[in-house]
Amino acid sequence: MTFRPETAAPINELVNILLRGESALTRGERELIATHVSWRNDCFFCQTIHGAVAAAQMGNDEQLVQRVKTDWESTDISPKLKALLNIAGKVQLGGKHVTAEDVLAARQQGATDLEIHDTVLIAAVFCMANRYVDGLGTWAPSDPAIYRERAMEIVEHGYTAVTEAATVLVQR
Amino acid sequence: MTFRPETAAPINELVNILLRGESALTRGERELIATHVSWRNDCFFCQTIHGAVAAAQMGNDEQLVQRVKTDWESTDISPKLKALLNIAGKVQLGGKHVTAEDVLAARQQGATDLEIHDTVLIAAVFCMANRYVDGLGTWAPSDPAIYRERAMEIVEHGYTAVTEAATVLVQR
Repeated sequence: MTFRPETAAPINELVNILLRGESALTRGERELIATHVSWRNDCFFCQTIHGAVAAAQMGNDEQLVQRVKTDWESTDISPKLKALLNIAGKVQLGGKHVTAEDVLAARQQGATDLEIHDTVLIAAVFCMANRYVDGLGTWAPSDPAIYRERAMEIVEHGYTAVTEAATVLVQR
Repeated sequence: MTFRPETAAPINELVNILLRGESALTRGERELIATHVSWRNDCFFCQTIHGAVAAAQMGNDEQLVQRVKTDWESTDISPKLKALLNIAGKVQLGGKHVTAEDVLAARQQGATDLEIHDTVLIAAVFCMANRYVDGLGTWAPSDPAIYRERAMEIVEHGYTAVTEAATVLVQR
């Protein structure tokens, strides 16, 4: 994103709207969807940073984040979030894997069209982000403390602040 | 995109920069990369509209577009574009499929870091777009003439005009 700030700007704007904009889903729930998809795509950086942001917004429950990655079906989350995670997992495989039954199941748990739309788009956006990070062989720190610290900044300032920081770095 | 213009705006801005912004790759070549990835993801709408935009910018050579979808290796395109299509195909499978050898092969054909970056990001963006379109079960017209006509508008006005048209539609 520092290498190409022109494209980083709309990416971060999109992520900011989806994960932090107005929604009936909490910010923590939306970060869990992003984290689950990133785990499915085996993207270390994305699952770790978004997992840390999810935990920071869900009472620092890192155990919960871990369970949502690997075993959301037997985790103590709402039936609506489970139905949305099911859709997100199908999107990760490919858009055509999502069935009318998957959408109906989410509606039956109270999900609105907007929540279903945003779930599909969050999952699709992370299929992009994961490929962008790993396709370029991006280096990522391994220390969890670094991700917890960055997560606190994201919780406070959002994703567009990432673009601004990158732009400042380029201008130096 | 009409349903959610807030997210359509950054998506179209991103696509516009990547497929129409300043680049050593022609607009036609970049549309071919988008078309090839969309074909790999079996997304009818994206491969047809971006295939039509590619053809419109490459002497209306629809045969060439068809060959780049299914058999780019034996098609009469530059070795550099072939090396980039190879990278794009790996990104479609998943970011970690791209190897140092793939990147080296593109550099040996004269691809710059920016061209390699943009190829990875175009492929990643279409892995998002394809999932967005098919994950929501979006209806798409089947008549090729409709795509040729829309392609002419995109060639003339770009992708951000799509956002503006959608916004007008919503405001009505």
